[in-house]
Amino acid sequence: MISSEFILIESIKKRVNRTQDLSEKIYGIGDDCAVYRISDNRYGLFSTDISIENIHFDLSYTSLFNAGYRSMTANISDIFAMGGKPVLALISLGIPPHFTSDMAEELYDGMLACAVKYGTFIAGGDTSKSDELILNISIYGETSSPVFRKGAEPGDRIYITGNTGLSKLGLEILNKKMDQNSFPGSIVKHLRPEPCVESVDSILKEYAPTSMIDISDGLISDLGHICTMSNCGFELYTDKIPADDEIINFCINKKIKVSEYTLYSGEEYELLFTSKKEIYNNKQITYIGNITSNGYTLISDNSKSAIELNGYDHFKKTEGK
Amino acid sequence: MISSEFILIESIKKRVNRTQDLSEKIYGIGDDCAVYRISDNRYGLFSTDISIENIHFDLSYTSLFNAGYRSMTANISDIFAMGGKPVLALISLGIPPHFTSDMAEELYDGMLACAVKYGTFIAGGDTSKSDELILNISIYGETSSPVFRKGAEPGDRIYITGNTGLSKLGLEILNKKMDQNSFPGSIVKHLRPEPCVESVDSILKEYAPTSMIDISDGLISDLGHICTMSNCGFELYTDKIPADDEIINFCINKKIKVSEYTLYSGEEYELLFTSKKEIYNNKQITYIGNITSNGYTLISDNSKSAIELNGYDHFKKTEGK
Repeated sequence: MISSEFILIESIKKRVNRTQDLSEKIYGIGDDCAVYRISDNRYGLFSTDISIENIHFDLSYTSLFNAGYRSMTANISDIFAMGGKPVLALISLGIPPHFTSDMAEELYDGMLACAVKYGTFIAGGDTSKSDELILNISIYGETSSPVFRKGAEPGDRIYITGNTGLSKLGLEILNKKMDQNSFPGSIVKHLRPEPCVESVDSILKEYAPTSMIDISDGLISDLGHICTMSNCGFELYTDKIPADDEIINFCINKKIKVSEYTLYSGEEYELLFTSKKEIYNNKQITYIGNITSNGYTLISDNSKSAIELNGYDHFKKTEGK
Repeated sequence: MISSEFILIESIKKRVNRTQDLSEKIYGIGDDCAVYRISDNRYGLFSTDISIENIHFDLSYTSLFNAGYRSMTANISDIFAMGGKPVLALISLGIPPHFTSDMAEELYDGMLACAVKYGTFIAGGDTSKSDELILNISIYGETSSPVFRKGAEPGDRIYITGNTGLSKLGLEILNKKMDQNSFPGSIVKHLRPEPCVESVDSILKEYAPTSMIDISDGLISDLGHICTMSNCGFELYTDKIPADDEIINFCINKKIKVSEYTLYSGEEYELLFTSKKEIYNNKQITYIGNITSNGYTLISDNSKSAIELNGYDHFKKTEGK
């Protein structure tokens, strides 16, 4: 048995890097996508995601349509996170014995709905029998200027698109079988998330981001990825992080800090990026903190607290060498 | 339960094509790879393959190294079959509870050995827990002139690289627990096949192939794919199909026709292509028949016999729209 996915992947990465000549055309270690230089100012972005029933989606409370939609969102979000636009996707499907054609079609309809909405062409794939439902999506996108996790520098401002927290609340409501009708935003965000609504083009143009990532593990964890790769720290104004009214009302009611949701909610697919620009007039993008030379600090009501980021698997995805 | 993978995939293909606008940049329906036009004379080739333990490889007689090597061969072969060169691959791994780090490393070592040999860069991937061992490889390659399955025309000559038959014999020897030492070529071909040894560049340059495919289902079946896509037939000189001495001696001994192996052995990863050129002096490439306007005919000892290609799943792979 493998005790830690982290140790396994680090070991594989070392092995891969030792065996292969370092390429000048392929890079992006530990980033959302592997990056391939096609020509001057043109880069291909590659990512792959494996989703398995009862690990990545639970069909007792999500539809196959939503499972497909959500998997495609996760892939498109990886392309957005590098500053790219999706081009095409390939689908591998492992089909368990109980699966019917109608079920497969519903799953594809979900993937197609998301792919078409964001300009991604489903260009083919592979199928096999399997014991459990397996869905692997490989996506290809392009950008003129890839944004990596590693470019943040002390003094850079930290920005976030949209708001965070709803996905975590949605999952809790589904798990605890609470009344879904009282939390429509949370349910939709958890079951059928969209990749970032803000245009990646306008982020590139207006903010010239120095680093970027999509929020898949949670704001704190993903900001930690940026800081680890950029060898720096952060100070985060937790009260500035935007939250939906559904989160705020729920937290007031339950006497919980809103930051319990905004900081730790994963699978949000909002974009988190750093920039040297000071911009305050964008309603979809909020300034929430600063990159520092080291240390991880939360600032709330003028009090500071240090936090640690240990114990979290930072290396689930390993695109790039 | 899904009664036919063929019906399922046809239904999904229709759904995908109905939902998506036809693209002028992405094509390759039912071919070895999806093809994406990067620029004039430059095309990206995309393929994905899912392999699952006990369906695609049996660890009771193959090592994890060989399982990894063989999966990478199948992917690289798809790129070769379109006239391309592999560039990079992404690996998704589903890890079952009994799997150890050493086992994962052995699997990667097999993939790496093959990837490095054929100039493919393992650029990243994804991992997950799973019930069974799952290995999905997505590969990207490039070519200046993609060769499709659909370009064959009546009068074209049919050529094949290397020889066929060993993989089927290898599988039988392993399944029947016969003496492996008497059939070293068959065992190696089945457990650790190489993608086509002949240079794809020289095929493109010398033969200007009108259609091409790699032999993964079996010569007859794969020639059937070319003819279905090209809307034509074939006549095949079964005695001209090259076979290794190991196959010939085995068949003489057992009083079996050699063509039982050469025509039906899958996972050979040789290239089968059609061309208008007449070339006889290439030791690695053999002329074995002709494309006709319709019908499937085998010619042996001057006797002709028609064959049908029903009952075989022609649509396991669906790259391209």
